[in-house]
Amino acid sequence: MEKSTKVFIATSLDGFIADLNGGIEWLDTFPEINQIDTGYHSFTSEIDALVMGRNTFETVCGFDIDWPYQKPVFVLSKTLGEIPEKYQGKAELVHGELKEALAQIHQKGYGRLYIDGGKTIQSFLQQDLIDEIVITVIPVLLGKGIPLFGELDQALIFECKSTKLFLEKIVQNRFVRRKS
Amino acid sequence: MEKSTKVFIATSLDGFIADLNGGIEWLDTFPEINQIDTGYHSFTSEIDALVMGRNTFETVCGFDIDWPYQKPVFVLSKTLGEIPEKYQGKAELVHGELKEALAQIHQKGYGRLYIDGGKTIQSFLQQDLIDEIVITVIPVLLGKGIPLFGELDQALIFECKSTKLFLEKIVQNRFVRRKS
Repeated sequence: MEKSTKVFIATSLDGFIADLNGGIEWLDTFPEINQIDTGYHSFTSEIDALVMGRNTFETVCGFDIDWPYQKPVFVLSKTLGEIPEKYQGKAELVHGELKEALAQIHQKGYGRLYIDGGKTIQSFLQQDLIDEIVITVIPVLLGKGIPLFGELDQALIFECKSTKLFLEKIVQNRFVRRKS
Repeated sequence: MEKSTKVFIATSLDGFIADLNGGIEWLDTFPEINQIDTGYHSFTSEIDALVMGRNTFETVCGFDIDWPYQKPVFVLSKTLGEIPEKYQGKAELVHGELKEALAQIHQKGYGRLYIDGGKTIQSFLQQDLIDEIVITVIPVLLGKGIPLFGELDQALIFECKSTKLFLEKIVQNRFVRRKS
């Protein structure tokens, strides 16, 4: 089974994924971007499941939209007792430390994983468990907010393998972990 | 006279311009980049002068290299009394608030300015005085360090006008301030 952990996320030019209140209105600074293909469907067609934390799961549940994921969703949580009834069959809880949780997901037959949510991504990076990061930069300087990246015990080297410019406004860079 | 303020700088993937001690050894993560043209000479050929703060000036003076700039350098400082004798004729002090300092530099006949140094860039951005930012991303996650961007009173919208990939490792994105 092919195993990989990938991130596909948008940030501001100063590296935030949300403003200080969690707001993401600034993602719509260039609404014309919603009319074009920026690779999300292609990206998700090549993953087997999503992995997110409780925060992101509850945020998505709070959106006034249909459940947005076609693939199974694993929710990492130490505190959530069970998935609300409405979402059973769509999302599944995984307990335990990160590497254990990952092993459980692999055992269920899901190898290629989309890792989502700020804290979850940071936890994976702290343990050097991310293979690839696709960052779509919405070129707004927010000045403050919730950063994508956090503290690390060790530096991690990636390589930029491709870059795409959309509408001469938005840029998307793909970084792959250097295996030494 | 054409007036512009541009930044040309390298950051880590997590947006730092130096580690917590000011170290920039990580800039050499991919030493092969020093063999190719990443646009610095083209960039500096189109500016009339550099503008930097005291910190950057003293850092450059501390390098064990010949004076690296062909163009006049203006050093913004409220505390520095005078430029050390060794650098007179190369660098010139400018006192006063940012907009006053800029006006003084313009009056001397220098319109197209390369703004350098972390604090100086942040001060210019706080007053919305930057037209263009070229960021060369060295894809290392440092985990901590001195960030390029700082707090702002207002969000600033840029547009990414071009992107270049070097050696399938390093990416350079050019952002231009949206004039509305």
